[in-house]
Amino acid sequence: MSATRYAYLGPEGTFTEVALRTLPEAATRELVPMVSVPAALDAVRSGEAAAALVPIENSVEGGITATLDALTGGEPLMIYREVLLSITFALLVRPGTKLSDIKTVTAHPAAQPQVRNWMAAHLPQAVWESAASNADGARLVQEGRYDAAFAGEFAAATYGLEPLVTEIHDAENAQTRFVLVGRPARPSAPTGADKTSVVIWLGDDHPGALLELLQEFAVRGVNLMLIQSRPTGEGIGNYCFAVDAEGHIADRRVGEALMGLKRICPKVRFLGSYPRAGVSADEVRPLRTGTSDSDFTEAADWLARSQDGRI
Amino acid sequence: MSATRYAYLGPEGTFTEVALRTLPEAATRELVPMVSVPAALDAVRSGEAAAALVPIENSVEGGITATLDALTGGEPLMIYREVLLSITFALLVRPGTKLSDIKTVTAHPAAQPQVRNWMAAHLPQAVWESAASNADGARLVQEGRYDAAFAGEFAAATYGLEPLVTEIHDAENAQTRFVLVGRPARPSAPTGADKTSVVIWLGDDHPGALLELLQEFAVRGVNLMLIQSRPTGEGIGNYCFAVDAEGHIADRRVGEALMGLKRICPKVRFLGSYPRAGVSADEVRPLRTGTSDSDFTEAADWLARSQDGRI
Amino acid sequence: MSATRYAYLGPEGTFTEVALRTLPEAATRELVPMVSVPAALDAVRSGEAAAALVPIENSVEGGITATLDALTGGEPLMIYREVLLSITFALLVRPGTKLSDIKTVTAHPAAQPQVRNWMAAHLPQAVWESAASNADGARLVQEGRYDAAFAGEFAAATYGLEPLVTEIHDAENAQTRFVLVGRPARPSAPTGADKTSVVIWLGDDHPGALLELLQEFAVRGVNLMLIQSRPTGEGIGNYCFAVDAEGHIADRRVGEALMGLKRICPKVRFLGSYPRAGVSADEVRPLRTGTSDSDFTEAADWLARSQDGRI
Amino acid sequence: MSATRYAYLGPEGTFTEVALRTLPEAATRELVPMVSVPAALDAVRSGEAAAALVPIENSVEGGITATLDALTGGEPLMIYREVLLSITFALLVRPGTKLSDIKTVTAHPAAQPQVRNWMAAHLPQAVWESAASNADGARLVQEGRYDAAFAGEFAAATYGLEPLVTEIHDAENAQTRFVLVGRPARPSAPTGADKTSVVIWLGDDHPGALLELLQEFAVRGVNLMLIQSRPTGEGIGNYCFAVDAEGHIADRRVGEALMGLKRICPKVRFLGSYPRAGVSADEVRPLRTGTSDSDFTEAADWLARSQDGRI
Repeated sequence: MSATRYAYLGPEGTFTEVALRTLPEAATRELVPMVSVPAALDAVRSGEAAAALVPIENSVEGGITATLDALTGGEPLMIYREVLLSITFALLVRPGTKLSDIKTVTAHPAAQPQVRNWMAAHLPQAVWESAASNADGARLVQEGRYDAAFAGEFAAATYGLEPLVTEIHDAENAQTRFVLVGRPARPSAPTGADKTSVVIWLGDDHPGALLELLQEFAVRGVNLMLIQSRPTGEGIGNYCFAVDAEGHIADRRVGEALMGLKRICPKVRFLGSYPRAGVSADEVRPLRTGTSDSDFTEAADWLARSQDGRI
Repeated sequence: MSATRYAYLGPEGTFTEVALRTLPEAATRELVPMVSVPAALDAVRSGEAAAALVPIENSVEGGITATLDALTGGEPLMIYREVLLSITFALLVRPGTKLSDIKTVTAHPAAQPQVRNWMAAHLPQAVWESAASNADGARLVQEGRYDAAFAGEFAAATYGLEPLVTEIHDAENAQTRFVLVGRPARPSAPTGADKTSVVIWLGDDHPGALLELLQEFAVRGVNLMLIQSRPTGEGIGNYCFAVDAEGHIADRRVGEALMGLKRICPKVRFLGSYPRAGVSADEVRPLRTGTSDSDFTEAADWLARSQDGRI
Repeated sequence: MSATRYAYLGPEGTFTEVALRTLPEAATRELVPMVSVPAALDAVRSGEAAAALVPIENSVEGGITATLDALTGGEPLMIYREVLLSITFALLVRPGTKLSDIKTVTAHPAAQPQVRNWMAAHLPQAVWESAASNADGARLVQEGRYDAAFAGEFAAATYGLEPLVTEIHDAENAQTRFVLVGRPARPSAPTGADKTSVVIWLGDDHPGALLELLQEFAVRGVNLMLIQSRPTGEGIGNYCFAVDAEGHIADRRVGEALMGLKRICPKVRFLGSYPRAGVSADEVRPLRTGTSDSDFTEAADWLARSQDGRI
Repeated sequence: MSATRYAYLGPEGTFTEVALRTLPEAATRELVPMVSVPAALDAVRSGEAAAALVPIENSVEGGITATLDALTGGEPLMIYREVLLSITFALLVRPGTKLSDIKTVTAHPAAQPQVRNWMAAHLPQAVWESAASNADGARLVQEGRYDAAFAGEFAAATYGLEPLVTEIHDAENAQTRFVLVGRPARPSAPTGADKTSVVIWLGDDHPGALLELLQEFAVRGVNLMLIQSRPTGEGIGNYCFAVDAEGHIADRRVGEALMGLKRICPKVRFLGSYPRAGVSADEVRPLRTGTSDSDFTEAADWLARSQDGRI
């Protein structure tokens, strides 16, 4: 029964699985590894899975384009949760392999920028071969196809490998952000520390379009946390923008900003409002004066009275 | 009975009276001249008059501060109509007076900039004395206190004077705008060529406050027709702004802009939405894309669906 | 010899004379009262006077339009100094006059809003008659034409009157700002607490023109202290703007903002850069990051290197 | 001798090589394939190559992150030319292979989104394996490791393969933009149809920083053609922006905008000004009023006169 099934970017032993297991509800779900982000999301679209956990942003690569594109196109889906996970790699090898034995290494391409400097320093001669996922790389090492794989240390046991080196990461504070995606439904109630994700298409290529988009947020005091350009696939220079804004679609300031975007842009896709990972309501940036829900309500009352001549 | 009584800036024979008589309903009202703009507006506040016609802007002096200040302070009033009148002056004298006889001239101070150049050319030696109104100046000439008065040619008969020179005006297209002011009530319905007047106080003296005020209008595609700074009376450098915007408070874009101002400014006074004089609905500037009422309605529907998860 | 002659808005005994006498150099100048602001400024234009002190803004009336218009039109002049003066009125009468004797009062029209409430409370029946200046009103009382005049207490002796009531002012902190105007010349060096005055004409009536004007200042971090709309005399709705900005034309941020205005506006008139009255260099608002002269110089060096390929 | 050597993203038979051969000078250069974009750029940095051609943006993937990151970090380089190439893929197989024989396909990961739909329709069961480059994928097919490779049709001959299907591309008008990168030097002179590339770091995470960045361009009338966010590697949510702007660093409006960015941002890296591919000077968007070089020169003259008091 699909309501108990959560898909994730597999195979078993990926960082995504680790992230998924941090969700309390994961304990009572059947966790199903999928071969790709699109496959995981399609399992949700088809009803085979109730939800899917996929990586969406990391501190080295930025927005993960396969996920952004899979959410931007196709049947609409919505984000309900986010999970932040610190990322460090281990170099996994078959038992007995020494550093000097390693001629080929593998991992998912997204791992490469996170270990590039370490490789240049410690394995300057090794050849990089991309794998479909970090866990799949580990499997290929198990099968003897490559000599070593970068993956989470937790993956070693699954594939009968051992971690030769651990805590590998080029950047300090390397983190990956994952999102739990489901079929569209009413978002959960605001918590006071929420995030709203949308994709916005700019109409024509008039020069100030992006500036106008940002002003729709700014004039209502809505802060942006991420703006990521993505090509629309309609020729060089045609972009849409994936935007994460502070606040919840049920917050009046966010709602009004989204309506403003909807009016001036040819297309806006709402991707969800959900609690921010790692931030509580008393840690969020204070609202700009005049942008709380009660400010909106009072102004609406004043407008109604003015329209009636009761001033 | 006050419902039949319209006050105006008198005395009889002022441009204001001429402007008032261009309103069809004036034919069935008792027209009462008042000694000053504040007196005319107070007659409305007290219920002695149903409405008052007062000058609010002219093409030489700009916003007429006595009127702006009387609308900005005191019990709230609202503007229901505007009247545009072309202004030219006549030089009124007692019968028999020649140009070379004129040593003193008088008129309301607002007339001075409109005749200054003409005086410099034709009456360089004459001394200017201010009068309480142009018509009052004519009366003072009649009484022999001054030699000549600048006033509307129509005032000559009232005061037994004759127009020595007519069509005097320094600037081409000199016009005065008058407004019909009444007690607060529901504005008349939008006509498609409307104007909305408000007074806006800037909260503190943070440098970008005026820019933010203008952006509240700009982001909703509401064009401004007039912005006039007025001191608040609370020390040098403290200003409020009288603003005329295109559109009607019942237009969604105008309503949202006004609510935005209401939220960020300490005080906003709505002065009315009323038809623009001399402009029909098919002559107004086209709306910016995305700012019509139907655009607002569609965006609100989209937001409601999104909040429900029906995307 | 004109270099020793300073004109001012007379007659003797006006607030303007008091303001002028606060300037150290006034002690060594011949101070010449003029009948009007335009007359005072024309004396400078013609070379009869080296400079003229005229009122330009007060906390009740705002920008003084006669002065703004006389600086905006005609042969260019420049502002070199400003003086702030606290304003309170005395009610001057002929010796022996009691409050209950007063049927008529006079003063310059600009005084009226500053004493209106006081009059309503204490002289509700008295008729107001405008005078050419407050001092001239005192003279007319001396001559017996009116019963009382509002003027500075210091004017009593000049006209043989006595102050019946003193310290009259409707608004707390009533101040008037005066400017010392001369023929164009190099402004004095920046002091660190300077002000720059310009008049800016908006080109056509495209709706966003005023917003663009403000952004030229905002993007360079130049704060505005006053923005006053004035009609251009070319028909209702055509305005230019008198602007006072923080800083000196020799400050790079101010210079760049002025050049930006010059490029997008059909006409900009520089009215001078001069020390702010009552504010020392350590009391001014701190500069926005990146807008000091050294920031500009470093950025220009960086640009020159980049244009050369030395990056 | 390095001056005659151009590196490119190899191996032989890539689209990059085809793009490079469209440059007239390529005929007289030694063209050296490199294994990766960083390797190609490092060959320039070390002096082994005079220049390198690398892909920087495509209409399906957007900015190519490996190239952007290699230009953003490391020793500074500059862009001198751009080349636009239409991209269609052929499915290359060993002679005799039929569509129904194909179990595995390979290509560079960047090719995947461009052929994803075609694969879903024609090879729904085939497994995708990433290759280091499209040409490398062809080599792996030649070696029998995989059954088919997506690559440019021109690559078939090199690897003894045959094109089973040609003209494969999911999006119409699929194009890739390549840039010719060299060591920093003075840019070539403006052509009237130029582009300027910069990378801009936003200082802190204050919410309006991106808006301010865009306003530095907008206020000088400089249009943006591309804005691509890239993580700085300093934690989730920390981004820099790669921006392509219309115009040349020698254009005054561009220079002033860059200086503005330099002042408000902690770091700006100039990546070059170079002719736009496929656009001639008479096809570019007209300049906004007041932003031509002569407008800047006139405004600077006016400022200098004003600073001198010659108004």
